[in-house]
Amino acid sequence: MLCLGGLLLLAAAGCDGVDDVPKADPAVIQRAEQLRDRGLASPLALEIVTSLTTEIGPRLAGTEADHRAVAWGEALLKELNFDRVWLERVELPVWQRHRERAAIVAPYPQMLHVTAIGNSGSTEGVLAAPVVRFETLQQLEAVEPGELAGKIVYINTRMERTIDGSGYGQISAMRFQGGRMAKERGALALMIRSLGTHRDRFAHTGSSRPHDDPIPSVALSIPDAEQLDRIIDGGETVTVSLDIETSLTEEGHSWNVIGQLDGRELPEQLVLIGGHLDSWDLGTGAVDDGAGIAITAAAASLIAQLPERPRRSIRVVMFAAEEHGLIGARKYAEVHKDEIQNHIAASESDFGAGAVWALDSDSAALLNAAMPVLAPLGIARGEAATSGGPDIFPLMQQGVRVFRLRQDGTDYFDYHHTPNDTLDKVDPESLRQNVAAWAAVTYLAAELDW
Amino acid sequence: MLCLGGLLLLAAAGCDGVDDVPKADPAVIQRAEQLRDRGLASPLALEIVTSLTTEIGPRLAGTEADHRAVAWGEALLKELNFDRVWLERVELPVWQRHRERAAIVAPYPQMLHVTAIGNSGSTEGVLAAPVVRFETLQQLEAVEPGELAGKIVYINTRMERTIDGSGYGQISAMRFQGGRMAKERGALALMIRSLGTHRDRFAHTGSSRPHDDPIPSVALSIPDAEQLDRIIDGGETVTVSLDIETSLTEEGHSWNVIGQLDGRELPEQLVLIGGHLDSWDLGTGAVDDGAGIAITAAAASLIAQLPERPRRSIRVVMFAAEEHGLIGARKYAEVHKDEIQNHIAASESDFGAGAVWALDSDSAALLNAAMPVLAPLGIARGEAATSGGPDIFPLMQQGVRVFRLRQDGTDYFDYHHTPNDTLDKVDPESLRQNVAAWAAVTYLAAELDW
Repeated sequence: MLCLGGLLLLAAAGCDGVDDVPKADPAVIQRAEQLRDRGLASPLALEIVTSLTTEIGPRLAGTEADHRAVAWGEALLKELNFDRVWLERVELPVWQRHRERAAIVAPYPQMLHVTAIGNSGSTEGVLAAPVVRFETLQQLEAVEPGELAGKIVYINTRMERTIDGSGYGQISAMRFQGGRMAKERGALALMIRSLGTHRDRFAHTGSSRPHDDPIPSVALSIPDAEQLDRIIDGGETVTVSLDIETSLTEEGHSWNVIGQLDGRELPEQLVLIGGHLDSWDLGTGAVDDGAGIAITAAAASLIAQLPERPRRSIRVVMFAAEEHGLIGARKYAEVHKDEIQNHIAASESDFGAGAVWALDSDSAALLNAAMPVLAPLGIARGEAATSGGPDIFPLMQQGVRVFRLRQDGTDYFDYHHTPNDTLDKVDPESLRQNVAAWAAVTYLAAELDW
Repeated sequence: MLCLGGLLLLAAAGCDGVDDVPKADPAVIQRAEQLRDRGLASPLALEIVTSLTTEIGPRLAGTEADHRAVAWGEALLKELNFDRVWLERVELPVWQRHRERAAIVAPYPQMLHVTAIGNSGSTEGVLAAPVVRFETLQQLEAVEPGELAGKIVYINTRMERTIDGSGYGQISAMRFQGGRMAKERGALALMIRSLGTHRDRFAHTGSSRPHDDPIPSVALSIPDAEQLDRIIDGGETVTVSLDIETSLTEEGHSWNVIGQLDGRELPEQLVLIGGHLDSWDLGTGAVDDGAGIAITAAAASLIAQLPERPRRSIRVVMFAAEEHGLIGARKYAEVHKDEIQNHIAASESDFGAGAVWALDSDSAALLNAAMPVLAPLGIARGEAATSGGPDIFPLMQQGVRVFRLRQDGTDYFDYHHTPNDTLDKVDPESLRQNVAAWAAVTYLAAELDW
């Protein structure tokens, strides 16, 4: 008798690899251990993320640099001997920043470090206006329409540092919705304290929900937000000037880049892994998400080097335009609607290169086989109910089962979406640990009966 | 019999506070201890550095912001009840940055993070040229005139992290002299790897030796320098574009801001302490040198609150234009030439707010009295031969004795001369420890016979 569902499984000690789940073939376990050990020794992922961040660098979705990244990704997967490599075109709007300057005009003139939030509008010249501060998005929401006419709204919610990055999701609505909400209340522009946990003077970009005729919206670096706070705390009215130029064109495109190892017994069934190929324009996209691209491509490549293919197919997807609302992932789920039921499991690596510390899964078969293989990597059994990463969400919504290799993201938001997201922030040792875990787990997922 | 000179003193155990130096008056020692304890508890230095960095912010010498800083400094010293406060005008050239953009044009197009070096010239539009790399300034020096025609010179010497910041001085010649040397060999521009020990994507500015018609000269952030190195190491010729606009006017001015506590017995004799008021334009000048301004003003203010003035005068100088070649300090030494012999001792705080760990001095009287007072602060006896800080150099050249409170500068070059030099990088606790040490030592220096 099989265990039912996830949370139940965690409570039921009898499920923990005794009699009720078929034992994995020892040869399969042995091969998973081999993959783990080869992953730990492999320089491949570091070579891949080095190549992507050096030879392409920033690759904002739909730009010429993104198109070069697509060609790079296609060439890489071919070089790594996938059985099939192909592109799937994705239509998308292309938003770009061209100029971003800000300053305190009064009472204490000085420059501010800001960056435009994705989908921000432009100022059409220099805009100078008094600042009204809110501690939370909810406080802004409580204001009546028209009450902020002629003002710049400033929201200064502080993000907490956590291993799982949960502090980010808790407050990111101020970036996603702040611009629209400020505009509806008559404000001329939005400023937010950067999401992020660093003390560096970099502002943190990221997307906001598209809407018509958006107002200029920027994030302030954390030291600059605290500078503003000190002045406002002193009882002064602060006037800020903004000079922001952005552009948006609806007629852009990119591609999901896909490589497949065809399964030896059930080739139509597949395990999907991947990362996203696009990055923000400020850094070189090393932790977000060059690392995920490198980890999953390297893991699949190690599996490709085995004497035989796993029973099921393994599909590696380099998703397009994740940063702009999972555009490539939604397109993938739409295009592959008819074979959704063949997606046995899916997972994305999109949380930098921090070490993996837990495997989340609702599959007793996978956990029973994988945990002894992963234990030497310092990886524990995680939770049954999980998400598979942002680009897996559209598949999960259609019922695809997901697993997740949970990473230490304590310092992820020190670099994420800032100019500081560069290759030197990737730790080669934990990158290899990731490859070891992904190679073993992906192989087992493609080999076992779930 | 008095001990002779500095280094001799260190070797001579008999000098260590036994019979040959007059014992300090126990009441004097007690007052020094009081000052130390009040310094440890005083919020004043934090208030001063907060005020300067928030209400003025960046204050490049000779600019309008610098003039506002001078007015701020004068008002502060008056508020702190100095007996006399005055300004001394300093003429100086004003160099400013207006635009700085750089990119790799080929083989892998992407933006580079650079900042212009002080006294850099402009590109007059966009300059694009191939890069020739040198590991050291000496390698560049070995090249024949004309051999670098049409090239951009790139020097990538790496700075080492040390407690005393000595890694900086060892390689700063590539910034001071690199531009002139590259120009003499026909190069169109200079790029250097940033001085500094951080891994952040900030380029590090600083001055270069003025010369006629300078070529554009920039520092690359360390991640960007390493990006360039990877491409060059791969055997590629890199073409870089630079778009740098700077300006230089010879007719600028600023002021040394001076406050004095008049001595009760020997008012014409004085102990000079201080910092420099100007800062680079990129940060808000918190560690360089808001901290030093705050530490020395706060220390003198504590002494001013004693029931009576020390025997000698204490003069606090906020030097002008240190960053551009000790211009205010040289002017001070020139203007005060006739009273140089009255400067009993001098010292500057210009190394951030890191904790003090040693007192350097060649005065047995000062060391004997001060060391027991400083020991609870974790401060040890340092060296006899020392420097008193950059702005003290012109006085030292004229024979003024100096002492030095040596600070832990392990992280100083993580922030120094970058946008990251902001208030949050000042540790309030070690700032207070500095004030405690400066108050005690300055008082003893003004009270004792040397």
